[in-house]
Amino acid sequence: MPPSTAKQRLSQVLCHLSSRPVATNATNGSLVSGITQNQPLSTTAFAVKTEGKHPHHVPPETTPVNFHQLNPTYFLPRSAQIEPQALAIVHKSVNGKIIERTYKEFSDRVMGLAYYFKKHNYKRIAILGPNTPAHLETMFAAVAAGGITMGLNYRLKKSEIEYMLDLGKADLVVVDAEFKDLADAKPGKLDVIVDEDLGDPNSTACQYSSAVREGLEAENGRGWAGLDAEHVNEDALIGLYFTSGTTGRPKAVEYTNRGVYLAAMANIVEAGYNSQDIFGRNRCHYLWTLPMFHAMGWTCPHAVTAVRGTHFCLRKVDADYIWDLFLTRRITHMNAAPTVNSMILNSPKAQKIPYQVRVTVAASPPSAKLFEDMIDHNLFPVHMYGLTETYGPFTRAYFKEEWADLPKKDHFSLLARQGHSFITSSEVRVFNDKAEEVAKNGKEIGEIVIRGNLVTKGYHENHEETAKAYGRGWFRSGDLAVWHPDGSIQILDRKKDIIISGGENISSVVVESIIVRYPNIFEASVVGVPDDHYGEVPFAFVTLKDVKQPLDKEAIRAWMKGEIGGFQVPKGFEVVDDLPKTSTGKVRKNVLRDLAKGLYQKR
Amino acid sequence: MPPSTAKQRLSQVLCHLSSRPVATNATNGSLVSGITQNQPLSTTAFAVKTEGKHPHHVPPETTPVNFHQLNPTYFLPRSAQIEPQALAIVHKSVNGKIIERTYKEFSDRVMGLAYYFKKHNYKRIAILGPNTPAHLETMFAAVAAGGITMGLNYRLKKSEIEYMLDLGKADLVVVDAEFKDLADAKPGKLDVIVDEDLGDPNSTACQYSSAVREGLEAENGRGWAGLDAEHVNEDALIGLYFTSGTTGRPKAVEYTNRGVYLAAMANIVEAGYNSQDIFGRNRCHYLWTLPMFHAMGWTCPHAVTAVRGTHFCLRKVDADYIWDLFLTRRITHMNAAPTVNSMILNSPKAQKIPYQVRVTVAASPPSAKLFEDMIDHNLFPVHMYGLTETYGPFTRAYFKEEWADLPKKDHFSLLARQGHSFITSSEVRVFNDKAEEVAKNGKEIGEIVIRGNLVTKGYHENHEETAKAYGRGWFRSGDLAVWHPDGSIQILDRKKDIIISGGENISSVVVESIIVRYPNIFEASVVGVPDDHYGEVPFAFVTLKDVKQPLDKEAIRAWMKGEIGGFQVPKGFEVVDDLPKTSTGKVRKNVLRDLAKGLYQKR
Repeated sequence: MPPSTAKQRLSQVLCHLSSRPVATNATNGSLVSGITQNQPLSTTAFAVKTEGKHPHHVPPETTPVNFHQLNPTYFLPRSAQIEPQALAIVHKSVNGKIIERTYKEFSDRVMGLAYYFKKHNYKRIAILGPNTPAHLETMFAAVAAGGITMGLNYRLKKSEIEYMLDLGKADLVVVDAEFKDLADAKPGKLDVIVDEDLGDPNSTACQYSSAVREGLEAENGRGWAGLDAEHVNEDALIGLYFTSGTTGRPKAVEYTNRGVYLAAMANIVEAGYNSQDIFGRNRCHYLWTLPMFHAMGWTCPHAVTAVRGTHFCLRKVDADYIWDLFLTRRITHMNAAPTVNSMILNSPKAQKIPYQVRVTVAASPPSAKLFEDMIDHNLFPVHMYGLTETYGPFTRAYFKEEWADLPKKDHFSLLARQGHSFITSSEVRVFNDKAEEVAKNGKEIGEIVIRGNLVTKGYHENHEETAKAYGRGWFRSGDLAVWHPDGSIQILDRKKDIIISGGENISSVVVESIIVRYPNIFEASVVGVPDDHYGEVPFAFVTLKDVKQPLDKEAIRAWMKGEIGGFQVPKGFEVVDDLPKTSTGKVRKNVLRDLAKGLYQKR
Repeated sequence: MPPSTAKQRLSQVLCHLSSRPVATNATNGSLVSGITQNQPLSTTAFAVKTEGKHPHHVPPETTPVNFHQLNPTYFLPRSAQIEPQALAIVHKSVNGKIIERTYKEFSDRVMGLAYYFKKHNYKRIAILGPNTPAHLETMFAAVAAGGITMGLNYRLKKSEIEYMLDLGKADLVVVDAEFKDLADAKPGKLDVIVDEDLGDPNSTACQYSSAVREGLEAENGRGWAGLDAEHVNEDALIGLYFTSGTTGRPKAVEYTNRGVYLAAMANIVEAGYNSQDIFGRNRCHYLWTLPMFHAMGWTCPHAVTAVRGTHFCLRKVDADYIWDLFLTRRITHMNAAPTVNSMILNSPKAQKIPYQVRVTVAASPPSAKLFEDMIDHNLFPVHMYGLTETYGPFTRAYFKEEWADLPKKDHFSLLARQGHSFITSSEVRVFNDKAEEVAKNGKEIGEIVIRGNLVTKGYHENHEETAKAYGRGWFRSGDLAVWHPDGSIQILDRKKDIIISGGENISSVVVESIIVRYPNIFEASVVGVPDDHYGEVPFAFVTLKDVKQPLDKEAIRAWMKGEIGGFQVPKGFEVVDDLPKTSTGKVRKNVLRDLAKGLYQKR
């Protein structure tokens, strides 16, 4: 919708809204099919605020006094009311200007944008862009307006974006100017708002800024009267987030109010985002290294907002800029895959940070070596595990006090486990093929399964895949693990990545964690290749820290034989410049498997 | 039930239980009327654990994969699984022996006790005693066994205890030996288990220890196979906690799984119980100065357990012992009414603690003077407000960063407000007599109202009082407050404690907060007395720090006239040895009112 027509429409809407109280459904319209029930706005949503006396908020008569729906969107206006002047967002805009927004500004802008979405009847709002303030604001505004949000991966191809927009039945795309071309996936069939990320709220050249302003300036500048936490349905769909499978088309995972709320509460407690002291000092300064489109940013938009933390947005993972932030802005928390942590540690600016940063490491199992390096730099890792289907992480490697006396090497191995379920999760389990629990002996291999509040609702409009993964009373993760006697789980591999050699299971993850301990190895990925004798044998791809120093393949093989059973030592080592990765940093093992096949046969 | 017959009954039950799987309802029995639905145990509850292979926990077919019931009792077995060796309970028993129990022991004993309750079909279990391990264990075990818990105030008279036991339809009382006589309230009509608090789990002289042992030794020492978090009803009643009104009979407030769960989550975040770092250091060491029977100990039994904190139990508030704990056990958190904090600060052992303790202050509004004294001793106050009807505190005085530059005196005044709602609460509001919101101007007085998840269900079997307080879509607190422009609330008085003098409202709380700033004043309480001219005038009762130094009443009156409007200065000052208080530390203003009437007329 071009902003030029917006003013015209606004006056129509205002005219329609002038008789109060406005019945919720009259202005809300019905939702696109597929959303079971969404949150209507307050009955006072578009009403002019009364002076002095506020209207009495009448809760629905059917709602007991001791019940309100779990609503993660409410965290934003709540925080804005408690600490309106607290710093909510810091961002270096595309033109280098530093944007700083308070919670009042953040909340007002979201309300303004929600007003715009509601007025133009946008219900299914896709976001295509990096970790900008516009991304964060749109996530809240789409839901506050009674719609849903869907984060798209801007590193995908246009055809893939088109597929996701169709699957999610998007009626609007909010796109960052850098990725404008991608939003053209369905020309003429979909409205588009471009965010120029200029750091100028008054820009008339920026469609996104104009949309926000339209809401902010409504009602003689009073804007939307606020959000009513009473009337949402906690089981309603509020987001679609896409799996980034290494093969196959992405699936749209259904996120609900209740799930996001309880995942956010768990993230606060487990990662310690409530670090602010009683005098308001040591506020959580959260660095957005994790893509917001990835599993709704693990519900951290809501978790960090709920405790009035500051979101340090990030257009791209730029190690230089990150080190500037460490040294000048006292970053307290960040979440990042092992590869991102490696990149940060390999920056020329890397040094020991003069305070401790709590870093959640997830996405793929980290090596003991990485943990050690991080701690040497005062980056204190918390290891978690999760999936798009579990709102991001739902398990954590809890460190036991009695481990303090063990050798350091053991610390890191224990912390590299996936651990136990989060505080608001039900128990994670490991099942064998008969859906029975495997023995808790750290040996028997099974599949990680989970059920309960931290599991998403299913795959949107994909009954077949939903039945496969959710159909037996448990969500089946597809990850293979052992269950230790202490109840912690440890991933061995993705089901499809395990290597079966001469009848023995080889965990590529275990082999990789050994390789990276060898000098000058930066990253390693191990896949199986067909072998006439063993069926399959392991084959390693590695990248080097110093590419000028060649790898002595015989030496590393000999060293590995001292560390691990001979059958697990890769039959081949291939040095590459980069490992092929998905947009979320997962190694594309299918690509490596094909490559390895060719290399192994050529030997 | 005398332990002598227990073995006999056990063999009957075991016989009955020998055919597996046991249908839940077959052994559970139906509940006493008044409980809507309670949590049955797992279908494997009494089953012998299988070796190696564990049974497949089949969730009910009707439960979606993305849902589990919010169950605060589950926090205990979860913590025991994550950190079995972590210190859960520390207690100085009645004979001076220090008891230390790990999370595994805590959880096993609770399961053992739950087994005992279930086997003997106890469903409504009253607890009568101070903050002992037995009290804590019984709170969890009663609910784990599918029953409810009710904490009784051991400072009440036998007739009052009898009234509460009848109201709650108790079928068992777990009583501390010190208060054994009180449990005799209904001789012969109620089973009683006495805890001797000897710190000896093998004692045969202690009925409570024997009951726990009966469960621990069941099934060849394997005991109960555990708790199933899937099958509780989150809206089920799990506790009755009694109001301690200064007048009238106590009312039994209904606590639910969902309410306790979300209140506990809020307490963790707001009080920062998740203080443990990633290497397990700085575990929450929670000191039990708050009575456990008071509003279920504000759900701190669950909040502290959920983050694997250590419960430092406390038979009585003994300032000497508390200072020993501060100086030797690194207490990190405690909750205490202002009077308890004053008592601790006035101990001869008082000194600056070598680390910071976070102290939640609630129950009655604290004075700026008290806040200042506390901080001087490294006791860092978090001010909260709540009621038995709100699971304890549900609002907090949040300190804004921008206040840092204000004079210290203003800090404390701002922190003495009741503030904003907790993270899991809905918004607190202030209503006038017409149930409209008052203006947020810090002047208009109204009643604090609240609704949502942190409000309890109602008064048990008391339709009249429930209708009065819960009947209009909001819980009406009975507390009078103003609403400040920043959305924070500030209590002026209990509705019945406000003094109306010459048509002006006088807040006794405000006048008291001024008096205690005067030298040598320890505590103050101000009530209204009838006056022919003004209708009512304020009258003050005070206690002194140094009783040998007399109070110059003319001097304090003259000083007050410089601090406050003349009509607010008490017409009389009476020095007393102690203020009359309820068992939970609230000043009995009705007693003072009668006293003041006599004193004022005699002048």
